[in-house]
Amino acid sequence: METDNSLRRLKTIEGHLRGVIRMVEEDSYCIDVIRQIQAVEAALNKVSAQILESHLNSCVITAVQGNDKKERERVLKEITEVFEMSTKV
Amino acid sequence: METDNSLRRLKTIEGHLRGVIRMVEEDSYCIDVIRQIQAVEAALNKVSAQILESHLNSCVITAVQGNDKKERERVLKEITEVFEMSTKV
Amino acid sequence: METDNSLRRLKTIEGHLRGVIRMVEEDSYCIDVIRQIQAVEAALNKVSAQILESHLNSCVITAVQGNDKKERERVLKEITEVFEMSTKV
Amino acid sequence: METDNSLRRLKTIEGHLRGVIRMVEEDSYCIDVIRQIQAVEAALNKVSAQILESHLNSCVITAVQGNDKKERERVLKEITEVFEMSTKV
Repeated sequence: METDNSLRRLKTIEGHLRGVIRMVEEDSYCIDVIRQIQAVEAALNKVSAQILESHLNSCVITAVQGNDKKERERVLKEITEVFEMSTKV
Repeated sequence: METDNSLRRLKTIEGHLRGVIRMVEEDSYCIDVIRQIQAVEAALNKVSAQILESHLNSCVITAVQGNDKKERERVLKEITEVFEMSTKV
Repeated sequence: METDNSLRRLKTIEGHLRGVIRMVEEDSYCIDVIRQIQAVEAALNKVSAQILESHLNSCVITAVQGNDKKERERVLKEITEVFEMSTKV
Repeated sequence: METDNSLRRLKTIEGHLRGVIRMVEEDSYCIDVIRQIQAVEAALNKVSAQILESHLNSCVITAVQGNDKKERERVLKEITEVFEMSTKV
């Protein structure tokens, strides 16, 4: 169900991005294009957060409650990695 | 020419985003999806910077060298605005 | 131990920030000031990631392995929240 | 005057950062520390935007209206550079 929601959002963003491409093709005002790109990025951030939330409530719970220490460490390390990357994009 | 370059990049990003959508449809690992979304965002940031650069070297120069004070102020204010927004997305 | 490391980093950042203040007091070139502010922010991002990592490996493991469902949900929700905020600052 | 304003903000941020250091020393809850670090970063972003605005309305206007093409290019290139960096921190 969460997947459906993320999928729907991503498809909306794809449409938004196609709109940005059209703007560039039609030689729209640069600042308007930049603003629309920023809107696309804000929407992508929302999807990422949503996917992370669903990941925490499924895989992460399973791994942390499981007996495989290596797997648990791997899963938690990934969270820190995407968090750190999120501050860079 | 700059427009051609931005356009080509944006179309590549559109393909990348369609790849992300496919990943979600095929139920790929959440963290891999998030990483690909972050890669799309990094690529969008590059296009934005490129569009801004071309804007500075055309419209901004024209406005700042022109006689219309209001227009100059408007154009410079927009730069600050997209800069401020870029720290938020 | 992790706390010591974060603390040391934060104190270094405080020194860096005082350097930025001095730059402004001495009327340094604006762009140099902005670049130093961005360096401070990059350093803060690193500390945040480090604190998050240590949080995941302590509180989050305890909460997820514990029996309190409400507490587990709260702890996981916070991760998503700081992740989402990290895309905005 | 703009400098005074930026200076005042930066000193407030320094106080805020010292508060974060105290939180870590007193072993505050990790997520609360991360949130305060994010608040410091948001405040730094505001100062950066303010400094950029004042830079655009002084040095940039002077350079763009001046006769030195190299200097003009340099000044405009810097704007793109801090913009691009702002998407990474």
